[in-house]
Amino acid sequence: MKLSEIAEKLGCEVTSGGETEIHRMAGIDEAGPGCLTFVSNRKYVSHIKTTRASAIILGYDVPEVPIPSLRSANPYLAFAQALELFAEPLRPEPGIHPMAIIAPDASIGLNPSIGACVVVGTGCTIGSNAVLYPFVMLYPKAALGDDVVLHSHVVVREHCRLGSRVIVQNGVVIGSDGFGFAPKEDGTYYKIRQTGRVVIEDDVEIGANTTIDRAAVGETVIGRGAKLDNLVQVGHGSSVGDHSVVAAQAGLAGSTQLGRGVKVGGQVGFAGHQAIGDAAVVTAQSGVHGDLEPGAVVSGSPAFDTGTWRRAVTAFAKLPEMLRRISCLEKEMERIKADRKKP
Amino acid sequence: MKLSEIAEKLGCEVTSGGETEIHRMAGIDEAGPGCLTFVSNRKYVSHIKTTRASAIILGYDVPEVPIPSLRSANPYLAFAQALELFAEPLRPEPGIHPMAIIAPDASIGLNPSIGACVVVGTGCTIGSNAVLYPFVMLYPKAALGDDVVLHSHVVVREHCRLGSRVIVQNGVVIGSDGFGFAPKEDGTYYKIRQTGRVVIEDDVEIGANTTIDRAAVGETVIGRGAKLDNLVQVGHGSSVGDHSVVAAQAGLAGSTQLGRGVKVGGQVGFAGHQAIGDAAVVTAQSGVHGDLEPGAVVSGSPAFDTGTWRRAVTAFAKLPEMLRRISCLEKEMERIKADRKKP
Amino acid sequence: MKLSEIAEKLGCEVTSGGETEIHRMAGIDEAGPGCLTFVSNRKYVSHIKTTRASAIILGYDVPEVPIPSLRSANPYLAFAQALELFAEPLRPEPGIHPMAIIAPDASIGLNPSIGACVVVGTGCTIGSNAVLYPFVMLYPKAALGDDVVLHSHVVVREHCRLGSRVIVQNGVVIGSDGFGFAPKEDGTYYKIRQTGRVVIEDDVEIGANTTIDRAAVGETVIGRGAKLDNLVQVGHGSSVGDHSVVAAQAGLAGSTQLGRGVKVGGQVGFAGHQAIGDAAVVTAQSGVHGDLEPGAVVSGSPAFDTGTWRRAVTAFAKLPEMLRRISCLEKEMERIKADRKKP
Repeated sequence: MKLSEIAEKLGCEVTSGGETEIHRMAGIDEAGPGCLTFVSNRKYVSHIKTTRASAIILGYDVPEVPIPSLRSANPYLAFAQALELFAEPLRPEPGIHPMAIIAPDASIGLNPSIGACVVVGTGCTIGSNAVLYPFVMLYPKAALGDDVVLHSHVVVREHCRLGSRVIVQNGVVIGSDGFGFAPKEDGTYYKIRQTGRVVIEDDVEIGANTTIDRAAVGETVIGRGAKLDNLVQVGHGSSVGDHSVVAAQAGLAGSTQLGRGVKVGGQVGFAGHQAIGDAAVVTAQSGVHGDLEPGAVVSGSPAFDTGTWRRAVTAFAKLPEMLRRISCLEKEMERIKADRKKP
Repeated sequence: MKLSEIAEKLGCEVTSGGETEIHRMAGIDEAGPGCLTFVSNRKYVSHIKTTRASAIILGYDVPEVPIPSLRSANPYLAFAQALELFAEPLRPEPGIHPMAIIAPDASIGLNPSIGACVVVGTGCTIGSNAVLYPFVMLYPKAALGDDVVLHSHVVVREHCRLGSRVIVQNGVVIGSDGFGFAPKEDGTYYKIRQTGRVVIEDDVEIGANTTIDRAAVGETVIGRGAKLDNLVQVGHGSSVGDHSVVAAQAGLAGSTQLGRGVKVGGQVGFAGHQAIGDAAVVTAQSGVHGDLEPGAVVSGSPAFDTGTWRRAVTAFAKLPEMLRRISCLEKEMERIKADRKKP
Repeated sequence: MKLSEIAEKLGCEVTSGGETEIHRMAGIDEAGPGCLTFVSNRKYVSHIKTTRASAIILGYDVPEVPIPSLRSANPYLAFAQALELFAEPLRPEPGIHPMAIIAPDASIGLNPSIGACVVVGTGCTIGSNAVLYPFVMLYPKAALGDDVVLHSHVVVREHCRLGSRVIVQNGVVIGSDGFGFAPKEDGTYYKIRQTGRVVIEDDVEIGANTTIDRAAVGETVIGRGAKLDNLVQVGHGSSVGDHSVVAAQAGLAGSTQLGRGVKVGGQVGFAGHQAIGDAAVVTAQSGVHGDLEPGAVVSGSPAFDTGTWRRAVTAFAKLPEMLRRISCLEKEMERIKADRKKP
């Protein structure tokens, strides 16, 4: 495909070399002849000099470069769109595999692609264009919207509901029992039946082996457009606001309420029973107890304002030195006081 | 069901409105007419004023309320029991699905419910009333007690043993090889055959996608009544004492020994080869090296006494200020010392 | 088997009791008559006095013991090798189960052992002696080398490639979509097609329920001989160097580059887009931002030199006391200054 053609499809500006033939997309360091690459992270601007790519997508803030280039206000988005131009179609064969096990009363929309060994329980409803890979298990009365993709080994438990265009990576468990046990006098526990469900709204994507527990009563909710990475834990009765992003291995204890557009770093933990304001940012490995204001940016465990935290962690390494300096001051103080007592 | 009827079944006291008709259970904020709700966490007492529930379960410590109420010494337990009264039965159809693959020499007790695509290996034994959902895999010689529920995609590896009334959520791996590799001179590793097994005692529940490794020799043990949340890692040769509770994403490195009634918060890590005393409490995200006394309450990474830790983390944010104050004191000290040298 | 026979097979020295009959291997505390045990961790040397084992494998640094013993320069390795002598063979029956679903154009090497409900997609290639347990799913064009063992519920996504002698524990996902989303002006996200793949080199072992994401472009690589524990997350475009070891629940954000022989503790997090030098060591629960020099040993979150970190965390518990001491010094300073103003 010619670079100028790509530019037209992406709505980018060609600054030079529109005739260049592009055969595939590649990262800046791996790219070779025939590759289109990109820079959106400032860290990689210096790599432009050494790349062997035939062309590059850049923001308007990067100075002129010696190779054919496209300019975009959002080079990362343009790169993502260009990837689609070269990617092979992924959709598996249409139809329902003869070794799929579908309850007779399940309702399945038009144009499904349901693989071998998929189990669809009684009373399930599935919208149009569903892609269910092998070993997907829908428990009774699960409901999926249109254009849903469930990769292999995904579980949707009883009564849970997924909206449209939801993509679920392999091994995800949606609607497992919440971790609810009432302590008894004798030190043992009574299991609390988890009678609620999980609701995943439209355009959500969920990463591999993530687990989302059903609520004891009511709903655990993943809001429209939210993105969850791999191995994330969402406790029962929690909700993730629209277009929020949760990185890998983060965990929300029960009844954590994330607002809209919240950004959660990897391995973050929320203590539960708390409200996190819209657009809050929690950096990786932080532990959040209590509520956060909208727009708050926090770090640390327990977490507090990131600016303050940065200064505190810088000082942290100096703790042994600080102890020494305090001891030294105390000794000098003693000496001064002793001197002053002298006649 | 009438409120008075519920009270009788739960052994609660009706303080008012025994004739109220209850149709379902609900959380205090979601409840509407016909709902029974509860308050056990003090944080939610103020919500009683605004709930639209028709009745509420309360402890004896909460003052009189304007809606029909039940009183219980353990309102959380009463709520859990009330949930059972309204919950639909979950048990799948009895019988063995024709697409289950059961070794001819496997022994299966009375009244099984074994779904499609369940694999039961040679020499396995399964007690009465077993529920095995689709895609459960029992490796050879696995043994299950009575009334066991294995949700879909659960794996029980060779020789592992589960007691009675064990509930395992989806995707759990019991008996994967422990992470054991002997370093060789040349910087490579020799895999140590994990010849031991995992033993899960009676009344244990295990959360989705949790992994419990088999021991190299001997056993990894989850004690009677213990509860493990989702995405927990139990390393080889570890043991979790009876009625201990381990929250999501916590990890026990090899040969961690938890006592009875231990409470482990989310994302906690144990370094391994250590003994944790009965009833110890480790708060979320802590990292525990070395042993803990019975009843110890610890926090932080590395973890120490929670009371001390709370004061330390409060001081932590003041570190940059402390540095400044020390520098200031040092300057004043210099000035005083300089002055004193003057004649 | 006679102790002397074992010694010969392992290339160990018998210091005494070569005629002792050994029936099985056991840990030092669980061992009984007929057992061979070992000590390689100094922590357990004191247990030699009380063990009931019939014989023991020791390093040359441990003083003489009253029971039959073997001596080895690497007692842990000798123990691992001895385990093989007593372990039962694990390999499942050869052949392809009639309920396996294999694409007609898939290429399968000699002597396969492919269980029930295995799905092998179109265009896959599998080397000799492959062991694929039930519910393994190979997406189209996946490729496996010789002598690969994939435990049940393992997923290898489209185009991913595994070398020879790779062992993958249950529930592992290789090649799930990387967590890549380009932010749009309106606060929503555009999914970036993950067109790259995962390459697992020879002799790698991967622990249960670990997830390894495919790259957006290019490759995510696990180098030869590397060992990953359970529930590890490897982000897209990352690479793990040869013979590196990553403990459970650690996470590598996208484009983390680990060198050769790196050791990563449990629950460690890497921020991504960084290079970690050969043989670096990162202790458990650390959080690493930025690059690390070869041989660096770091701890903490954010991580820095372990020696300094140890002193800092020791001082950490003294923070409240330090605050008090600073306040006290300030008061004394005030008093001195006030005094000096007096005529």
